[in-house]
Amino acid sequence: MTLRDEVLELSRSLLQFELALIRLAKRNITSVFPGYTHLQPAQPISFAHYLLTNFFALSRDTERLLEAYSRINRSPMGAAAIAGTSVPLDRGLIARLLGFDGIVETSLDAVGGRDFALEALGVVALIATDLSRISADLLFYSSAEANLIEIPDGFASTSSIMPQKKNADPVELIRAKSAKIAGEFAVAVTLLHGLPSGYNLDYQEITPMLWQSFDELRSCLQILTSLIGEIRLTKGIAERRYLQFTTATEIANILVKEENLPFRTAHQKVGLAVKSAMKQGKQLSEMTQVDWDRVLGFTLKQRTLKLIARTLDLNLQLNTYQTIGSPNPRETRRLIALAVTRWRVLAKTITDARTRTESGLRQLRRMTSTT
Amino acid sequence: MTLRDEVLELSRSLLQFELALIRLAKRNITSVFPGYTHLQPAQPISFAHYLLTNFFALSRDTERLLEAYSRINRSPMGAAAIAGTSVPLDRGLIARLLGFDGIVETSLDAVGGRDFALEALGVVALIATDLSRISADLLFYSSAEANLIEIPDGFASTSSIMPQKKNADPVELIRAKSAKIAGEFAVAVTLLHGLPSGYNLDYQEITPMLWQSFDELRSCLQILTSLIGEIRLTKGIAERRYLQFTTATEIANILVKEENLPFRTAHQKVGLAVKSAMKQGKQLSEMTQVDWDRVLGFTLKQRTLKLIARTLDLNLQLNTYQTIGSPNPRETRRLIALAVTRWRVLAKTITDARTRTESGLRQLRRMTSTT
Amino acid sequence: MTLRDEVLELSRSLLQFELALIRLAKRNITSVFPGYTHLQPAQPISFAHYLLTNFFALSRDTERLLEAYSRINRSPMGAAAIAGTSVPLDRGLIARLLGFDGIVETSLDAVGGRDFALEALGVVALIATDLSRISADLLFYSSAEANLIEIPDGFASTSSIMPQKKNADPVELIRAKSAKIAGEFAVAVTLLHGLPSGYNLDYQEITPMLWQSFDELRSCLQILTSLIGEIRLTKGIAERRYLQFTTATEIANILVKEENLPFRTAHQKVGLAVKSAMKQGKQLSEMTQVDWDRVLGFTLKQRTLKLIARTLDLNLQLNTYQTIGSPNPRETRRLIALAVTRWRVLAKTITDARTRTESGLRQLRRMTSTT
Amino acid sequence: MTLRDEVLELSRSLLQFELALIRLAKRNITSVFPGYTHLQPAQPISFAHYLLTNFFALSRDTERLLEAYSRINRSPMGAAAIAGTSVPLDRGLIARLLGFDGIVETSLDAVGGRDFALEALGVVALIATDLSRISADLLFYSSAEANLIEIPDGFASTSSIMPQKKNADPVELIRAKSAKIAGEFAVAVTLLHGLPSGYNLDYQEITPMLWQSFDELRSCLQILTSLIGEIRLTKGIAERRYLQFTTATEIANILVKEENLPFRTAHQKVGLAVKSAMKQGKQLSEMTQVDWDRVLGFTLKQRTLKLIARTLDLNLQLNTYQTIGSPNPRETRRLIALAVTRWRVLAKTITDARTRTESGLRQLRRMTSTT
Repeated sequence: MTLRDEVLELSRSLLQFELALIRLAKRNITSVFPGYTHLQPAQPISFAHYLLTNFFALSRDTERLLEAYSRINRSPMGAAAIAGTSVPLDRGLIARLLGFDGIVETSLDAVGGRDFALEALGVVALIATDLSRISADLLFYSSAEANLIEIPDGFASTSSIMPQKKNADPVELIRAKSAKIAGEFAVAVTLLHGLPSGYNLDYQEITPMLWQSFDELRSCLQILTSLIGEIRLTKGIAERRYLQFTTATEIANILVKEENLPFRTAHQKVGLAVKSAMKQGKQLSEMTQVDWDRVLGFTLKQRTLKLIARTLDLNLQLNTYQTIGSPNPRETRRLIALAVTRWRVLAKTITDARTRTESGLRQLRRMTSTT
Repeated sequence: MTLRDEVLELSRSLLQFELALIRLAKRNITSVFPGYTHLQPAQPISFAHYLLTNFFALSRDTERLLEAYSRINRSPMGAAAIAGTSVPLDRGLIARLLGFDGIVETSLDAVGGRDFALEALGVVALIATDLSRISADLLFYSSAEANLIEIPDGFASTSSIMPQKKNADPVELIRAKSAKIAGEFAVAVTLLHGLPSGYNLDYQEITPMLWQSFDELRSCLQILTSLIGEIRLTKGIAERRYLQFTTATEIANILVKEENLPFRTAHQKVGLAVKSAMKQGKQLSEMTQVDWDRVLGFTLKQRTLKLIARTLDLNLQLNTYQTIGSPNPRETRRLIALAVTRWRVLAKTITDARTRTESGLRQLRRMTSTT
Repeated sequence: MTLRDEVLELSRSLLQFELALIRLAKRNITSVFPGYTHLQPAQPISFAHYLLTNFFALSRDTERLLEAYSRINRSPMGAAAIAGTSVPLDRGLIARLLGFDGIVETSLDAVGGRDFALEALGVVALIATDLSRISADLLFYSSAEANLIEIPDGFASTSSIMPQKKNADPVELIRAKSAKIAGEFAVAVTLLHGLPSGYNLDYQEITPMLWQSFDELRSCLQILTSLIGEIRLTKGIAERRYLQFTTATEIANILVKEENLPFRTAHQKVGLAVKSAMKQGKQLSEMTQVDWDRVLGFTLKQRTLKLIARTLDLNLQLNTYQTIGSPNPRETRRLIALAVTRWRVLAKTITDARTRTESGLRQLRRMTSTT
Repeated sequence: MTLRDEVLELSRSLLQFELALIRLAKRNITSVFPGYTHLQPAQPISFAHYLLTNFFALSRDTERLLEAYSRINRSPMGAAAIAGTSVPLDRGLIARLLGFDGIVETSLDAVGGRDFALEALGVVALIATDLSRISADLLFYSSAEANLIEIPDGFASTSSIMPQKKNADPVELIRAKSAKIAGEFAVAVTLLHGLPSGYNLDYQEITPMLWQSFDELRSCLQILTSLIGEIRLTKGIAERRYLQFTTATEIANILVKEENLPFRTAHQKVGLAVKSAMKQGKQLSEMTQVDWDRVLGFTLKQRTLKLIARTLDLNLQLNTYQTIGSPNPRETRRLIALAVTRWRVLAKTITDARTRTESGLRQLRRMTSTT
């Protein structure tokens, strides 16, 4: 395969994974999931929101890959050693017949430029970094401590010494491989550092790096595509008591709206409530009106208490988010539709690129067969 | 400055350097220069051809930077901690008033995504790699051995111990800084490796890396822009006898065309001629008809001999190149016109981006001043 | 400060942290802690065992640093531009008076060698990688899910929006900084790649990289030294029911010893017991003799049942480990004594190096003051 | 092969190359060669001095490798999953029988520590960086412009299009491979970044990186060992007129000693002489007494003129260097003797390490065969 083919193949593997993310998101629009910052539960989100976020990240990577494609698919043919030739070759025609979208402008550039390879490795590194984050997430979510998802049996091994353990082997390997794949960019930068203009044999070492990175990345994507489809959420996440604290921000918002507290005060008071509840080993939902009144220093309206109670039901809280791009199920549905549209645009770009190339090659075959 | 401003500023610095390259190219369309492969003189090119090749490489970098810009200039505002908020903020309006070209779709992505920073560092690394090649070229071309260009006095220091030396200090520093700048991408990849989704304080360390890289890169570009304008070619390059051998390929081409030799044979024979000349300490131009006949095993036509003689005049040889993108002066003029057009398109893209952002901010100022 | 001083200073910071690890270990010899593999609890260890493991890792780093010191503390003085001089300087005397342990043998090496700097950055990268692991551990152990340790208040911030959260800010920053510090090695490799022998101005850029890395690393070590002293283990770790499964390996060992089962069979059977317990929502300690007999297919001896029960008490299990280097408290005490000895050897090496250097410099001052 | 075997094998390959360097140095003690700084000829050295400098650099690398060996050759056996076992294994005996020099102290360290691998990759990166410099030197020295050495035919290819060119293919590939090999350290740092304590499957990806790096590095060293033995210096280097300027420093020294000029003045005056000579297209040796007197503003003693003339004979100048470690042939002979001694110490360390390991393994075979 040539680099341009590799790029289109990799784009297709990305699209497969993106499709799997959209599909799983559709089934998890109302599945409550903890949204983490600093590895601490911050606010409740939905599992669909998590999945769609990864869809959008990967679709940006696909965009980058296709933009790189337009710089990769240029013909260097006809540059001879470095300066072209006195033989009157038609570089434009050759490019067209070989399915290129254009030519590299100068002959020295055609021979000596390797930025197209470096750019490809750069996008590949971005994708790998995304996969390393997804792997880290899956490993944490499936840890005995977090216990949020279950890695399907086909993607886990049991330990030979420790029968109680189920290790997500392929996910750890994908995390490790992402380091290797992303590292090739730095290797290529070092290799090219300080090389003079014109062709150097050093370039030859870049080619296997490209092939290997693309191969390994495609294989990682294929594994994740299969795996993601079989992931099961642990039951009862919304009922986990320690996640109730993630509603604190929204409770503060309620105090602002309903009790006219300044935001800063509302936030401080809720902080005190959380600390007092933690101290007593209570959940926020177990706080009585008396508890709240003591913390706040005044008596809450009944309406406020009801709103707080509703917020403490994580299943209901998703509905209270009002902003565009939030995990509100209504908004999630809109985002899914947007994702589908974006997916189709990317798919069409890939097909069009392929068609252009093949039409050139077909013309070439026709010409050579008639001769 | 924000990252989007940094990106536009850096694009402008790139354009300044690109302009300097075009200008110097215009003055060197017929200046013979050795085209190197493997650090060995391969074929004669023109100095303009060398400069334009670098123009096209850097204009691709500018393109990449502006494509990254379209992903950078999206608003994360309104994502709150991670999941949006129940306060009904209009994220679209906020984005418009802050001069963004759109919003980051999901709130988790807005908070946790850092691929825009990694992409920026990736393009920066590509530019730095280009600068490292240009620096290496300048250092080699100005070495006592190659002696092709003269580094202007303002950019060279004399050694305190060795009065005969003139060192191109800023060029060596640019080569070194290019390693540092390009290295930040790998650092950011390491930093992000295996981080969980959502915001992590680790991200905070990426910001100074961005600022420093952009600053140093702009300063490198400014130095190169000044320096390139004052570079002088050493006199008499076309007359250097060891460069005559770079015409060997074209002599083989002549034998193919004029004497109907198969290419492989022509190439072998010219190889023998070169070796025999080197052995006798002769130049190719000093080979007599007898010499040629002995090497070739047959008698050359007078016309062929004349064509060979013309090719051995490097000044004339540039005119013999027939392919698009070659150093033929006619072709070089076309490439300069193309470069100017491309330069203008890039300049307009930058201005348009700036205008869009400023129009949003102006509206914001109007709104806040009327309140 | 010179590089040799930086190296000794950093060694001292390492020793401070190592001392803090030993001290905390002394207080936690019998504190049960989960030992993780694949981020899953594998076998019970003690917190002291965890701390001592990090002591030994860092003491190896200190060793490496001091070995690098012996190559760093060599005098390049007297090499002149590159080839020495006709002035009869006594390089040996100069080296002695400047407190060096010897000279760089050849003048070209003295001027052009930078492997000492690269080696220093390499050891620094190893230390940083150790700190990145320690940071990741602390962040996971203090997560709401794992809840094994409490980050002292002085090293945590509460979120402005989420009052329930306590983020270990400095630990996240140390993890991020470790990426930056470790990355400088790769930058230096790139910078040096393909540079010719002899002095190049590029080298000048390595110096600030060294200073910054050493500074940041020392500051990370100081923070960790303070933090580690104030860490508190969460109460009741040994009683956590999900950790009982980590005794599975030892139960299999008991079946081998007491019931003469082949290891493979014992392991399979315990695996079945664990699965069956998990299915029933039971802990291993809640399995009755009947439960065991059903899983095993035969009747356990009373003695075996007692041993199993003892193993399920994690506090007791530590005592059952018999191998050198295990978390058995007896063994832990031996390891602490070993650590103290090793620490003293390293401390003496540092003092001796300093003394040698200072004695040279003192002699120099005496000579210059008498003149 | 195990890592410890790889380390000893690589050390042996290093020793082979170091021996080749010493041998070639012995034959080139008085071969004048330009000493470069900033890629500009600075002072005359001997080719032996260049070769010995590389010997000393590589012998430091061998030292580092053998120091790493002492940390690599420790037994992790008997750590079980992570915490040791209740089975009373004798870890010390096992270590001895498997030819280890000791054990990894704690079981968690034995299972989870990978600093030994990272350290190995770090030394490998230092060696690769040295090879990249040697490659860059060889390519520059053999360029048409510098024309100082001739790459033996077996290590060069002729271009298919350009018969006049001789490219040092393997040397360019070694330069490129050195970037790849050195890059593995950064990949391993990324891979390990933020991994938790204990075993992670990610480690598995480090092993092929080690094997591949060691393999490629050994193969690079073997090629260089063969190549270096066949390198021929170009004739007449000492007579090259542009190298005369490299004596400027020594001429200034003569003026200081013989004419009592302050160093600064001497240096300025010689600078003027060089410039004036360059302007007139003269060599320094072509400057008459009148020329010197005009530049200096006073009349030189006859003795001074003679000394200057002697210095301008580069063959004689080597003898004027007085400092330890200079290219003075007398000093070069001493350095060769020192190199031989150092080489023997390293060779013995390797043999001893091998002997220790084999004696353990022999004991093991005896024990298992008698059973």
